[in-house]
Amino acid sequence: MLVERELDALVVSFLPNVFYLTNFTGSSAVVLVTRGQLHFITDFRYLTAVETSWATPHGCPGASLVRVGTNYDETLVGLVKAVGVNRVGFEAAHVPFAQHARWAAGFGPGVNAVPTERIVEAERVRKDAHETATLREAAGVLTPAFDRVLAEVRPGRSEREVAARIDWILMDSGFERPAFETIVASGPNGALPHARPGMRRLAAGDLVVLDLGGVHDGYCVDLTRTVSLGDPDAQARRVYGAVLDAHAAGIAASRSGATAREVDRAARGSLERAGLGDAFGHGTGHGLGIEVHEEPWLRRAEAQPAVPAGDAGSQPTPETHVVIESGMVFTIEPGAYLPGWGGVRVEDDILVTDEGPEVLTQVPRELVVV
Amino acid sequence: MLVERELDALVVSFLPNVFYLTNFTGSSAVVLVTRGQLHFITDFRYLTAVETSWATPHGCPGASLVRVGTNYDETLVGLVKAVGVNRVGFEAAHVPFAQHARWAAGFGPGVNAVPTERIVEAERVRKDAHETATLREAAGVLTPAFDRVLAEVRPGRSEREVAARIDWILMDSGFERPAFETIVASGPNGALPHARPGMRRLAAGDLVVLDLGGVHDGYCVDLTRTVSLGDPDAQARRVYGAVLDAHAAGIAASRSGATAREVDRAARGSLERAGLGDAFGHGTGHGLGIEVHEEPWLRRAEAQPAVPAGDAGSQPTPETHVVIESGMVFTIEPGAYLPGWGGVRVEDDILVTDEGPEVLTQVPRELVVV
Repeated sequence: MLVERELDALVVSFLPNVFYLTNFTGSSAVVLVTRGQLHFITDFRYLTAVETSWATPHGCPGASLVRVGTNYDETLVGLVKAVGVNRVGFEAAHVPFAQHARWAAGFGPGVNAVPTERIVEAERVRKDAHETATLREAAGVLTPAFDRVLAEVRPGRSEREVAARIDWILMDSGFERPAFETIVASGPNGALPHARPGMRRLAAGDLVVLDLGGVHDGYCVDLTRTVSLGDPDAQARRVYGAVLDAHAAGIAASRSGATAREVDRAARGSLERAGLGDAFGHGTGHGLGIEVHEEPWLRRAEAQPAVPAGDAGSQPTPETHVVIESGMVFTIEPGAYLPGWGGVRVEDDILVTDEGPEVLTQVPRELVVV
Repeated sequence: MLVERELDALVVSFLPNVFYLTNFTGSSAVVLVTRGQLHFITDFRYLTAVETSWATPHGCPGASLVRVGTNYDETLVGLVKAVGVNRVGFEAAHVPFAQHARWAAGFGPGVNAVPTERIVEAERVRKDAHETATLREAAGVLTPAFDRVLAEVRPGRSEREVAARIDWILMDSGFERPAFETIVASGPNGALPHARPGMRRLAAGDLVVLDLGGVHDGYCVDLTRTVSLGDPDAQARRVYGAVLDAHAAGIAASRSGATAREVDRAARGSLERAGLGDAFGHGTGHGLGIEVHEEPWLRRAEAQPAVPAGDAGSQPTPETHVVIESGMVFTIEPGAYLPGWGGVRVEDDILVTDEGPEVLTQVPRELVVV
C-alpha cells in the first residue's frame, strides 16, 4: 500500500484504523507503518496490556513497541526522524489541521508529510473471513436480545426509560457496549429520524421506532424495527407495508456488481411508487464494521444525510458510484417520516456474498403488535 | 472575540462549541459567527427541532438558519462568500486537514482561512451561573444514584455486568446518558487505570474501582469511588488512606490564583510522601462541563496522560501554568496503581468559588466495605 503511493511510511492515528491493523482496543495510540515494519506508539496506561496481548498468537509479529515520551506528537516526530524516512503519509480526513502543523514543524525540511485518504479504509470495506464470522456472531447475539427488547415496549413508559432498558439488555446479552445512542421514537416523534429518546410516554396506538445495536469483539451490528402499541390503523399498515417493500427491494438489489446508488434507487423507487418518496429523506444504508457508520454509503447522488442520525457533518459528499463487492457489509434501512403523524423504519444488516445478499440480522420483519 | 484577532468571521464546527453557543444537541451543524450575526447551518433532520426551540425564550435571537444544500462544506463555502467576509477563522484543533483543504479550495483567493485555537474553549473554561447551577443539579442526581450503585457491587458478578447495571441506574436516575464508558476494575485489574470492564468476576477481598458519570442538560459529572468486598487488609487501608490524603490536599489547593500544576503538585506530593509517587501515573484532574474531559488540565509539566482513561492522543502537551479562577469546574482524582495487586482512585468534582473550593459530588469518601 506504500509502494504504489511512493510513500516511505504511513502514520495511522485514526483509532478504528489502528484497531484494524493491530487489534488495539484502547483509546490512545499511533501507528507508523514503514516498508517492512510496524511501529506502535502508546503510553504507559496501555503498555502492559499490549505486551501481554502481543505475546499471544493474535499478536503483531515483528512489530516494535514505542513508549510515549513527552507527548504523542513529539514521540512520533522523533520516531519518523530516527527511522529515516522521507515521504510520510498521514490520514488527512482524520488528522486535525493543528496536529498536522505540529508534525510538519517537527519534521522540518527533511521529511515530507503527504496527505492521504482511504488507505486503510479501502482495505476495511471488504470484510475478511474473520470479520464476517465476527459480524455473524454479533448478529446472533442481537436476534434473541430483540425478543427481550419487545417485552419492554409498554404504554406508560417514557422513551428514555425504554432506551435505558434496551441498553441494559444489550450489555446483559454480552455486547461490549451499545454501538450508538439507542433511538426510541414514539408516536409523532417517529417523524424525526434523528430523535433522541425523551420524556414522552408511550401510548396505545403509537408506532414506535426502535433503533439499536451492539459492539461484539470490536464489530458493530445495527437493527431497527417499528412496532405498534395496539392494533395499527389503516394508515400505519399502509406506510409499514410500503417501507417493508422498499426494504425487500433494497436487499434484492444488494448484489456484487451493482453500484451503491443503484441499491439506494431500488429502495427509493419502491417508496416513490407508493407515494412516499418525499417522506424518505436519508440514505438507504451505510457500511458496518469497526465503525457503526462506514463505507459504503448507499444513497442517491444529490444532497442527503447518509444516515438517519449521527455525525455526517465532516464528510464530503460520499462517492455513490462505488461498486458493491462480495464481503461488503451494510445496512438496508428505508423509512418514511410524516411530520405530525410519525414514522416507520425497518433496518437489517446485509453481507454481500458470491451467492447474493445474506441477511445477518434474523428478526421477523412483519409489523409486530405489542 | 473577532475584533482583537482581526477576524471578520469564525467557523465553529466542533460540536461542544456549537452547543455552547446555540444549545443545539444534534449531531451535525456548523455555525458561522460574523461581527454581529450568527448563521446556523444544519440539515433537514434537525431543521424542525431547531425552529421549534428557537421560538422559545432560550432561542437564538437574531440568528439566521441555513439549510444544507449538497453538503455541509459547500453550503458553508457558499455562505462565507455570500456574506462577503475576508479573514475567516476556523478551529484548527478540530477541523481535519482534508476538510480545511476543501474549504480553502472553495473559498478561492478572495477569502483567507485563518487557523485559530481556543476561541470558544477560552470562554467555556469559566462556568457562568446557568452552567454552575446545571452542574450542581447534575451532581445532585449522581449522589443518590451512587447509593444504588453500591447495592450492585457483589461477589460473583462480572465487571461487565456491574458496569451494565451502573449504566442502567444512571439512565433510570434521569441522566440523558452515561458521560463516558463506565469503569469497573476489580482486584488486580484495578492496577490498570484504563481498564475496560471485562469478564472477571468480583471476589471477596477485592478492591473495586468504580468510575462513572452522567450527562444532565448537556453537562457532565464524573465520580470515582473504590470499595472493598469484605474487610480490607492492612495494605488496602494504607493505600486507600494515602489516596484520600492526596485527594484532600488536591481539593485544599483548588483555589483561585493557584496554577494547575500547583494543584497537581499538592496531590502528588502527598502521595510521594507516602511512598506512592511512582504508583500515580496520570494527572490529578481535568476540567468538566460540556465535555467530560476539557480544560483545565491539572497535571505536572512532564510527560503524563491527562486522564486515567480516554483519548488524549491528539492533544498537545496541556498548558500547566494555567491560573485557576473562580467558576472553573474540574475533578480531583488521585490514584495509586500497584501492578499485580490492584488500585485505588477517589474522584470528586470541584467548583472553584471566591470563597474557595466547593465539592459538587457529595458521596462519602471513606472506604466503603460492601
